[in-house]
Amino acid sequence: MKQLRDTPLKRFLRDYRREHPVSEHHIALVLEDVEYPVNVGSVFRLADACGVDEIVLTGITATPPNPTLDKVARGKQRVVPWRYERDTRAAIGELREQGYTICALEITEESRPYHEAHYPSRICLVAGHEDHGVTAKTLALCDMAVFVPMYGKGRSLNVHVAVSVVCYHIRHTANVGRD
Amino acid sequence: MKQLRDTPLKRFLRDYRREHPVSEHHIALVLEDVEYPVNVGSVFRLADACGVDEIVLTGITATPPNPTLDKVARGKQRVVPWRYERDTRAAIGELREQGYTICALEITEESRPYHEAHYPSRICLVAGHEDHGVTAKTLALCDMAVFVPMYGKGRSLNVHVAVSVVCYHIRHTANVGRD
Repeated sequence: MKQLRDTPLKRFLRDYRREHPVSEHHIALVLEDVEYPVNVGSVFRLADACGVDEIVLTGITATPPNPTLDKVARGKQRVVPWRYERDTRAAIGELREQGYTICALEITEESRPYHEAHYPSRICLVAGHEDHGVTAKTLALCDMAVFVPMYGKGRSLNVHVAVSVVCYHIRHTANVGRD
Repeated sequence: MKQLRDTPLKRFLRDYRREHPVSEHHIALVLEDVEYPVNVGSVFRLADACGVDEIVLTGITATPPNPTLDKVARGKQRVVPWRYERDTRAAIGELREQGYTICALEITEESRPYHEAHYPSRICLVAGHEDHGVTAKTLALCDMAVFVPMYGKGRSLNVHVAVSVVCYHIRHTANVGRD
């Protein structure tokens, strides 16, 4: 096996995209109070890779331009549609009007393991602060919640890692649930 | 919905693990020349969460103890079994003797999208340097290769994000392929 680089790599990825259009899922992300620029930057890079429609940054979430965020995002903050909305409630209201079902990435009594949930074709994932998670106010506005099972000693993944695992699952593997 | 914290959170995750033991897949990781401590630390945190059996660090890969690595790993470098082996060939030879099929996380002409591959029940993922990927020498030793499709402008994910997406896919979703 030989690694592909440069033009052959570009061609390989482009051919794959042509033959395998993204699934029927439209994915939006709300980052509520995600404080560290490195996490927000990572989410931009992931969102570009995974074909996310839009990122809405709310509350104290770091926003571009920011040297750390921009570096970690590898320029994807200029590619992925995003906007800042101070009030998470307003952001969720607008996304719901656009037909998105609002899904918190959080552990609650009602949370389903992400790989067993049914995701409607327009799904908005809400991720929260590195330590405090999604706020109670925002959780009250969500239609559903999912979590990433933890099989070891830790109680959580890094927020951008959890978003990545769930986004790629939705993109490739999840069945479209009832809207 | 109400967020679970502290003891109820611990109980929720523990109950989930009891009722849902990890899949039949045994996962090992080889990190070849993963240079940045933050990436190695992130892989330790992921490996604990996802129930990875062992991490083998080879070549110039950062190793514990390292202040950045240890911080990002949140102490999981003391929980997840790991060892350092300078020579990747030797590491792969030992893992193969233990029954692992060796799978590069790399784009080659023969690479399969990670979500369409069949993973034998003992699977060792090999990830490489942040810029240079898995070396040609090491690719020549691998039994298979998978890649994470990219639907945007970027050509790659961060190495620890790609490892996370593929590990959780194997843990939850992949069918066990033929050994």
